[in-house]
This record gives sequence, structure tokens and C-alpha cells, in this order.
Amino acid sequence: MSSTTAGQVIRCKAAVAWEAGKPLVIEEVEVAPPQAMEVRLKILFTSLCHTDVYFWEAKGQTPLFPRIFGHEAGGIVESVGEGVTDLKPGDHVLPVFTGECKECRHCKSEESNMCDLLRINTDRGVMLNDGKSRFSINGQPIYHFVGTSTFSEYTVLHVGSVAKINPAAPLDKVCVLSCGISTGLGATLNVAKPKKGSTVAVFGLGAVGLAAAEGARIAGASRIIGVDLNAKRFDEAIVILAKKFGVTEFVNPKDHDKPVHEVLAEMTNGGVDRSIECTGSINAMISAFECVHDGWGVAVLVGVPNKDDAFKTHPMNLLNERTIKGTFFGNYKPRSDLPSVVEKYMNKELELEKFITHEVSFSEINKAFEYMLRGEGLRCIIRMDA
Amino acid sequence: MSSTTAGQVIRCKAAVAWEAGKPLVIEEVEVAPPQAMEVRLKILFTSLCHTDVYFWEAKGQTPLFPRIFGHEAGGIVESVGEGVTDLKPGDHVLPVFTGECKECRHCKSEESNMCDLLRINTDRGVMLNDGKSRFSINGQPIYHFVGTSTFSEYTVLHVGSVAKINPAAPLDKVCVLSCGISTGLGATLNVAKPKKGSTVAVFGLGAVGLAAAEGARIAGASRIIGVDLNAKRFDEAIVILAKKFGVTEFVNPKDHDKPVHEVLAEMTNGGVDRSIECTGSINAMISAFECVHDGWGVAVLVGVPNKDDAFKTHPMNLLNERTIKGTFFGNYKPRSDLPSVVEKYMNKELELEKFITHEVSFSEINKAFEYMLRGEGLRCIIRMDA
Ligand SMILES: NC(=O)c1ccc[n+]([C@@H]2O[C@H](COP(=O)([O-])OP(=O)(O)OC[C@H]3O[C@@H](n4cnc5c(N)ncnc54)[C@H](O)[C@@H]3O)[C@@H](O)[C@H]2O)c1
Ligand SMILES: NC(=O)c1ccc[n+]([C@@H]2O[C@H](COP(=O)([O-])OP(=O)(O)OC[C@H]3O[C@@H](n4cnc5c(N)ncnc54)[C@H](O)[C@@H]3O)[C@@H](O)[C@H]2O)c1
Ligand SMILES: [Zn+2]
Ligand SMILES: [Zn+2]
Ligand SMILES: [Zn+2]
Ligand SMILES: [Zn+2]
Repeated sequence: MSSTTAGQVIRCKAAVAWEAGKPLVIEEVEVAPPQAMEVRLKILFTSLCHTDVYFWEAKGQTPLFPRIFGHEAGGIVESVGEGVTDLKPGDHVLPVFTGECKECRHCKSEESNMCDLLRINTDRGVMLNDGKSRFSINGQPIYHFVGTSTFSEYTVLHVGSVAKINPAAPLDKVCVLSCGISTGLGATLNVAKPKKGSTVAVFGLGAVGLAAAEGARIAGASRIIGVDLNAKRFDEAIVILAKKFGVTEFVNPKDHDKPVHEVLAEMTNGGVDRSIECTGSINAMISAFECVHDGWGVAVLVGVPNKDDAFKTHPMNLLNERTIKGTFFGNYKPRSDLPSVVEKYMNKELELEKFITHEVSFSEINKAFEYMLRGEGLRCIIRMDA
Repeated sequence: MSSTTAGQVIRCKAAVAWEAGKPLVIEEVEVAPPQAMEVRLKILFTSLCHTDVYFWEAKGQTPLFPRIFGHEAGGIVESVGEGVTDLKPGDHVLPVFTGECKECRHCKSEESNMCDLLRINTDRGVMLNDGKSRFSINGQPIYHFVGTSTFSEYTVLHVGSVAKINPAAPLDKVCVLSCGISTGLGATLNVAKPKKGSTVAVFGLGAVGLAAAEGARIAGASRIIGVDLNAKRFDEAIVILAKKFGVTEFVNPKDHDKPVHEVLAEMTNGGVDRSIECTGSINAMISAFECVHDGWGVAVLVGVPNKDDAFKTHPMNLLNERTIKGTFFGNYKPRSDLPSVVEKYMNKELELEKFITHEVSFSEINKAFEYMLRGEGLRCIIRMDA
């Protein structure tokens, strides 16, 4: 595919957030060409994640508006800027909110994916190269979001934030691997690493937690215990849904007088082998740690805590040979590792369809926000062409 | 060697603690023959560890007296009880305060050494088999300590608490592997696992911390930063000593206005790769965690905390891909793993001589207590034959 738009400003539709908490407005925007080490993508599908909603609501942060949100998506490279050799027009890609420069200490470490250059930055609304936005309306700049801004037919990203994937993969499915699903899946497969036959507890049964459960299913866990406070999540429909993710038992801490880590210890003869916290609640983080078995238990924290939270436990819980680790984006290095996650889907090891509970056209994008605010379903795919 | 004493009560010398904090008294004691799954050892060398002193002082615990302390030692099997097939008279062995039954879930797990049956129990003063002591003086029972009671020429242990080692190994050296040295060494080699060329911080430069540093030296760490509050430990003589253990830099938190984890972060461009806490101080535990680099840092806790301590940190420190683990006896399974630690000494990979700073005869055992109470030196070997 050779692009006739390369080097030109593209006029296209984007969903602009003009103000905190106000419905997005589909506007015609101008998207400047990619500069050095940047690429411009045509977005085909995008989906909505809590992080978009959180920064759109802008409670507790410095608001940055007008802004184009969106960070879970699948698209095709339209054109590339100077110095870009890894990608070419026509490549199928997933944009990622946290990048991989391949040069820094983190990128060079086998263990870390927290790139010094392209680590998530929710405060920055501009491109690194010149400190400016590539989006504008009648000359007024519109801010970027986490380097992706996928709620636009075209968007510009740093090359380090773009993962090239198998062109045969259906972008309307694998687009959900850009953020939450990979986060939960990787937390289990890359960090908790449960052995075949082991018992895994998952705290929080949102999309991230269910992806963690999916990881436990893939790893061959024999018991997957879902813990969630939200009665809604235990509605019959949700139990049926969660069972699809391999969840074998359910615990609602509100149903018990004793602390949930004790409930789990009783259910499992002393504690679970692995636990994965996907709630963002500090209480769940502490329970997820205290519910693992002494001698070998590993707890993995995924949820993003509040500013003033304190993780607090008796050090003897650690001394008794328990481990606690945190993870960010499931420890996946976006460019190096996402292609193989897509392959897991292609060879039917990983199921993605069950995460996709809604679909809307781009013009109906505000419906996706409503579903999420009502806690309905898991992922809503937004079709850019409709 | 065939024993003429097998099945007989042995009369021999033991150092008896009659009262908390009072000098031990060398007494003639009667040592009953081993019962089912027990062995009787002739102790040749024993050394003194803080845990002996702590329970002898009996501050903050239920005191159990009269008692025979001692748990770091080297000896020879004198006779074995019914059902013992793994050991025979003449075998060279190390007694260990925490055992390995080889049957329970912990012993069967690759990861744990916290045997359900023989895990350290400081409150029990009797044998498991019949709930009675094997030591007596004129019919008065004298209590055991952590299943070892090595401050006696002969002692009886559960077979699961006895590690059979290479008979060529000098027992006056390898006896120190029974507890503290293996604890520190294993914390580094089995749990922190620093890579070659990495930077390791060790909090606390007592015998355990210096053994952790020795582990870092063996693993090929390029920087080993010793952190200790005790000015005495930074006396010229101690610095020279610590350098023998590979410690390359020293930090005394008292010399700095800012928190020690910030001092270490500045020294290391963001944090150390691994840290090992060997102090028992909750502040050191928290600092040891907070000083590791994000993305890949691992902190290992070894020190035994106080009852009311709380480990407290911001969960974001975890989310940024840091790991914290506790370890017990360096994660060594005593019977399965200690023989190979002895081999590390035999092939000169591991140095033990530098840990042995004093030597006394059995009749002078109270001197060993004085050295330790004064914080002088690291290990004092007590020769049973002198
Ligand atoms: N680390 C990363 O890279 C990354 C990426 C994406 C999302 N996240 C985080 O993962 C977390 C989960 O994301 P999600 O989209 O699945 O959220 P979600 O809101 O859909 O699901 C969270 C679930 O946790 C439950 N919960 C809340 N408190 C609980 C408690 N104390 N005990 C048990 N359950 C409790 C809620 O009822 C809810 O069902 C969030 O904190 C999010 O910020 C992290
Ligand atoms: N987990 C196990 O299996 C095991 C086995 C043996 C010993 N231990 C524990 O290991 C710890 C160390 O044992 P040891 O025999 O080497 O003790 P030690 O008393 O000889 O050494 C401890 C050192 O830590 C230093 N220290 C205390 N607080 C500090 C702080 N806040 N920051 C920096 N340094 C500090 C002291 O000055 C001292 O030099 C103890 O808590 C002991 O109970 C654990
Ligand atoms: Zn990088
Ligand atoms: Zn997201
Ligand atoms: Zn056992
Ligand atoms: Zn000891």
C-alpha cells in the first residue's frame, strides 16, 4: 500500500473531549504528518478502558482539555516519519500507552518494561519530538492522551509505542490486547506464573481480573477463585460469564464475618498458591497478599492505588516465605512481546471474544462511556468506519 | 564404627542454663538412647548464635528452664533409633534447628523449606515422639532447645533435623553452616539471586549480613554496599573485615539527613538491583525494600521482626515492578541442600574461616556469650573435647 496522504495534513473525524465529564463531540480535526521517529496510523477499531473514563472525568488530577482520549485500538500504518525503519505503510499494529524505546536501561533489562523514554505519562498532552500536538481544529491544538489518542480516524504516535502484529489477525478482536486484557493476562502468565494444577485467587472480576483468570486457565490452574465485592458481579449472568474464564469458585468478602484472607485459607488448606489483585483497592491488595500460602505463595498487584494508600502487613507474613510483586502492563514489553500474545489468540490458546460484550459505531462513542459507567459488560468495541 | 554405647544411657558433660541470663553450668547429664526416628550425636564443635542468647536471656518469651541451648554444631552419629535408615553410626552430620521430614506439603514443594512437622519451634522443650526430654540430671528432666541442644557432648535429635555431610569436611569449620551463615548465604544465592555485575545492598553487617555479602561475592556482584547503624561496625578493623566479604562501600544511615533509601538511589542511579535485610529492624526492612530499582529490583527480608512491627510502604513502590520476599534459613532444605553448601566450602568457592573470629574450650562456654553480648567478632567456635 503506498499512501497518497503521506507528508500531508489529513482531515478526519475524531471524538473530542472539550470538557471534563461532558459527552465527546465528533469533530473534523486536522492531523499533521508524523515527524522524526513518529508514525501516523489509521485506526480501524478502538475500545474503551477505565483509564480513559478516569481522565475524562478528571477527578483529582489537573484537567487537560480539549483532548482526544483512547488507547486500546487496532490500526494500519498510514505513513512514517524520518528515521523510522521498523514500520512501513500498511503494517497492522496495536498502539500502546506505554512504549519501548529499545535503548534505555529498562528496555535492555530482561525483567522490566518500564521504558525511561516512553513510560506512561498521563499529564503530557503533546508529542516528545517538539512538545506540540499533531491534532488541531482551525489552528487550535487538541491534546493527545498517553501518546495514543485512538478516538480519531487518524492519530500520530512515537514509533516506540506501536507494536507490529500478524496482518492476518482480526483487528476488531485483538485491539483489546492494547491495554487491560494484556495487563491481566501478563500478570498471571509473566509474573504470578502458577504451576499446572495450582490454586489461584483473582481479586476483582472486571476485564483485567477476568484476563488474569484467563491466564490462570491457560496455565492449567485447577482452582480459580474469584473475589469481588460487587454483588452485581455475582449476578447469575456474571457467574455464567466468569465461568467461561475458568473461574471455579466465588467469594464475596461482604458475605463473611471473618477477613477474606482467612476465608480463602480455610477453603484451600492454608492459602492459595498465587493471587492476583485487579481492583485498585488497598484492602484487596493486603488481602491478596495475606491469602497466599506460606512457603511458596506469590501475590501480584495490578490495580492502581490511591495517592494516600499505605500497604501494611506484619513482616512475619513475608518472613514465612511469601512473595509480593507489582506489575505494570503485565510485564509485557509492548513491541517485543505483544506479537506473541496475538499469536496465542491466533492459535486458539487465548480466547478474546468473551471479553467483547458490546459494539457501537464511532458516532455512538458516548454509549460506550455509558456502559462502562453503569458497570455493564467488559469491553465495548468502537467501529471507526461506521 | 560400631558403638558400644548404643541402646544405653550416656553420661556426659553438658552446659546447662538453669535460669534466664545466668551463666551456664557444666554438669554431668544423662542422655537417653534415641527412640523411633531419632538419632544420638556426639557433638565435636558447636558455635554460638544470637538466637541462643535471645532465648537464654528470655526477655519477652515464656522462659523454659533448665534447658540445654545450642544449635550450630558439627558431630558424628553415635547411634540411631528404630526406623532410621538414612543415617548410621559414624556419619558426619550438621544438626539443624529446622528440619525436613520429606513427607509434608512443604518438603514436597520445590520452593519451601518450612516443614510442617519439624519447622522451628522455640517453645517446645521435648522430643516429638513421646513429648519427653532425653536429658536428665538425677531424674530431673532438662529441656531441649529447637530440637538440637548442641551444648552437650551427646544430644538426641529427630532424624529429620540432621544433615549428613561429606566426612572429609572439617567439622570445626563447617559447623557454622548449621544456622546463621547458611541463612545469609542462601538469602542471596537462593532468593535474591543477583546477576553477575549487579549491585547489592546488605542491611546489617553481623554474621548473617556478611554471609549475605559472601553470597553476593560468589554470585559475582560488582558492587556490594554494606549498610549498618552501628558505628562499631565501621571501625577500621571491621571495614577491613567486611572488605574480606566483598563489601565495597559502606553507608551509615546516621551520617545522612535524607532517608537511607534515597542515599542508595543516588549512589546507584536509581536504586540497587538487589537488597538483603539482615537486621531484624522494621525500619531497615522498609528501607531495604524502597532502595531497590524499579522495573527489576528484588528485596529479601531475613531479620526476625518484633511482634508489633508493621511493614508499611506506598503500594506504588510495588506497582513499579519491585519484588519483596522473605526467607527462612536461606530457603535451604536442611537435609537435601546443606551437603552441597559444604561442598562449596570444600571446593573453595565459599570461605568460612573469615567468619570464625574466636575459639574457646567447652569449659569456657560463657566467654562465647560475653563476646556476643559485647558485639565482638562474628562466630566463636566451642571445642567440646577441650
Ligand atoms: N497496571 C496496569 O498496567 C493496569 C492496566 C489497566 C488497568 N489497571 C488497573 O487494574 C484495576 C482493574 O481494572 P478493571 O478495568 O478490571 O476495573 P473494574 O472496575 O472493571 O473492576 C474492578 C473490580 O474490583 C472489584 N473490587 C473493588 N474493591 C474490591 C475489594 N476490596 N475486594 C474485591 N473486589 C473489589 C470491583 O467490584 C470491580 O468489580 C484498576 O485499578 C485499573 O486501574 C492496571
Ligand atoms: N531467617 C532466619 O532463618 C534467620 C536465621 C538466623 C538469624 N536471623 C536473623 O537475622 C538477623 C541478623 O542476625 P545477626 O546474627 O547477623 O545479627 P547481629 O545483631 O550480629 O547483626 C545485626 C546488625 O544489624 C545492624 N542494624 C540494626 N538496625 C539497623 C538498621 N535500622 N539499619 C542498618 N543496620 C541495622 C546492627 O547494628 C548489627 O550490626 C537477626 O534478626 C536474626 O534474628 C534469621
Ligand atoms: Zn526504553
Ligand atoms: Zn487501559
Ligand atoms: Zn516436612
Ligand atoms: Zn542461629
